[in-house]
Amino acid sequence: MLEFTVSSGRDLGTQLLHLWPSYLAYATSFLTIGIIWMNHHFCVEQIGRANRTLMFLNLLLLLTVAFLPFPTRLVAQYLQQTGEQAAVYAYDATFVLMAVIYNVWWRYASGGRRLIADNVPDSAVRAITRAFNPGVPMYGAVFLVAVWSPLASVALTFAIAAFYLPSAALFDR
Amino acid sequence: MLEFTVSSGRDLGTQLLHLWPSYLAYATSFLTIGIIWMNHHFCVEQIGRANRTLMFLNLLLLLTVAFLPFPTRLVAQYLQQTGEQAAVYAYDATFVLMAVIYNVWWRYASGGRRLIADNVPDSAVRAITRAFNPGVPMYGAVFLVAVWSPLASVALTFAIAAFYLPSAALFDR
Amino acid sequence: MLEFTVSSGRDLGTQLLHLWPSYLAYATSFLTIGIIWMNHHFCVEQIGRANRTLMFLNLLLLLTVAFLPFPTRLVAQYLQQTGEQAAVYAYDATFVLMAVIYNVWWRYASGGRRLIADNVPDSAVRAITRAFNPGVPMYGAVFLVAVWSPLASVALTFAIAAFYLPSAALFDR
Amino acid sequence: MLEFTVSSGRDLGTQLLHLWPSYLAYATSFLTIGIIWMNHHFCVEQIGRANRTLMFLNLLLLLTVAFLPFPTRLVAQYLQQTGEQAAVYAYDATFVLMAVIYNVWWRYASGGRRLIADNVPDSAVRAITRAFNPGVPMYGAVFLVAVWSPLASVALTFAIAAFYLPSAALFDR
Repeated sequence: MLEFTVSSGRDLGTQLLHLWPSYLAYATSFLTIGIIWMNHHFCVEQIGRANRTLMFLNLLLLLTVAFLPFPTRLVAQYLQQTGEQAAVYAYDATFVLMAVIYNVWWRYASGGRRLIADNVPDSAVRAITRAFNPGVPMYGAVFLVAVWSPLASVALTFAIAAFYLPSAALFDR
Repeated sequence: MLEFTVSSGRDLGTQLLHLWPSYLAYATSFLTIGIIWMNHHFCVEQIGRANRTLMFLNLLLLLTVAFLPFPTRLVAQYLQQTGEQAAVYAYDATFVLMAVIYNVWWRYASGGRRLIADNVPDSAVRAITRAFNPGVPMYGAVFLVAVWSPLASVALTFAIAAFYLPSAALFDR
Repeated sequence: MLEFTVSSGRDLGTQLLHLWPSYLAYATSFLTIGIIWMNHHFCVEQIGRANRTLMFLNLLLLLTVAFLPFPTRLVAQYLQQTGEQAAVYAYDATFVLMAVIYNVWWRYASGGRRLIADNVPDSAVRAITRAFNPGVPMYGAVFLVAVWSPLASVALTFAIAAFYLPSAALFDR
Repeated sequence: MLEFTVSSGRDLGTQLLHLWPSYLAYATSFLTIGIIWMNHHFCVEQIGRANRTLMFLNLLLLLTVAFLPFPTRLVAQYLQQTGEQAAVYAYDATFVLMAVIYNVWWRYASGGRRLIADNVPDSAVRAITRAFNPGVPMYGAVFLVAVWSPLASVALTFAIAAFYLPSAALFDR
């Protein structure tokens, strides 16, 4: 997923330690994708049937997720270096886009119970919608933080992944 | 799927903006593959049994799809630069080949209802065949457009993907 | 699977034409793996239960298949250049190893009908074994051909894949 | 999974032979992941239901496995060269981390039979736990060996994979 690079002619141990922004960016992207996948799986269980529109929104979500390794590599390469701001803007913009598409996907499926399975109670649908609500504002705020501190912005992206892990308790059977 | 590259020593933000041909080529290939996959999935549901010939045609289709990232990378790298015509020819030729193989695949499966499941009405088979018909001519025309304008040719490839999305309404249950 | 490379500063069209050894090597590896997978799938349908030994042999087969892109890239890079013999030796050796492991896998599963499902007739097992028999000798001969002509050796590897496609008619339901 | 590299201008055959640390590192990582996957599959069969915590631990295990190609490439590149110790430390540390997460995963699922299926006897659970017990100490010891001999440490990592293959007999049906 992410290409870590070391160059010959310098002490390898030191290089590996200085790669910490890479590890942070890798773990953040991996955990975000993993948690999205866990929650996506849960949402899909509430959905009774699919149609072309849902599949196309799914495809757009996948396109964004498959694109993520590129800005992740940018952050890994540029964090704490010249150009870090542009790198983190690209990174954060991808997360904002992902959050927007993911929200559209769920709102399309759940609006007026369009594709929700009959045996799923309204309260379960509302609980998931409540969990989706803060997604776009949070990633948007994280984007703004990058104006002042790119590093803090990446750390907050990690924190949102962590936020969506326990808040998933809302989803748990 | 696609390797985006930036080089150190130049402003990263500017570089990211100038990568737009890469984003266009990436999105076009991704959406085309995604829509092929959606339609392929739908076709397979009409097919009652497989045989070796169908599996081999499937394999050829997969070979072409798995090859696509290479010409996509060429377009991303050469569009608006010297060599863009050769790059777009390679890109378009891959799409023509893919359209040909995909058509052969469907015609083999559906001809005389060879492998079509018994409960599928003739009208459904004809609807799919009608959707397949313009594929090769359209990609062939897009190839010819590259003689005059490589950029227009790539944009039209994107448009064909878009064409196959709503025309898929023909397929919808 | 295979990384095709072009370098800037030379005519792209000419370069793409001169990449033909890459296309040959790519198609050969892709089709070989595809046909192995088709036949593997058919063999597995004859097998009633798995055990650790079979799974481990499967793992070794997968290890060899996953290694194949490396010698394929070597052939793509060195064919018709200095070093082509070593590249083709590495390529052919990988195919010999794959054929050996694949044969051991099938012989382990089928010997004394060890893991064969009860409802599979002896004649079906014998037909598959007959198809496996020439595999190792053929890839071994192809290896020897590389002493005289590396290019002929690669072409013959392609031919073996083609041989295993129709001979699969023996397997067909 | 692993990128093997050769450079032009030197004899290819000699280079391929000198790549043996790469082959050792590749095979070790591949077999370790394969055997973990086989054992993981067996453990999952004992588990009756999943919850979010188990899925998150699974995600962490996957993160570590997906990270493994990086230290594997380091070992392949630096073994028998300056910097080999740092490379093997990184390699061994990843295996220690993987062993720790894998143990936590199993202990969480099996502790007090939390997620174990009802029809699985206590003796089967205890047999798996006994197989897990030496994992972390063994990989820890292998890490310490790297202080004296990085090569011996890699060879021992390979040996642990081999150890977990026959010891899997404990698991066999």
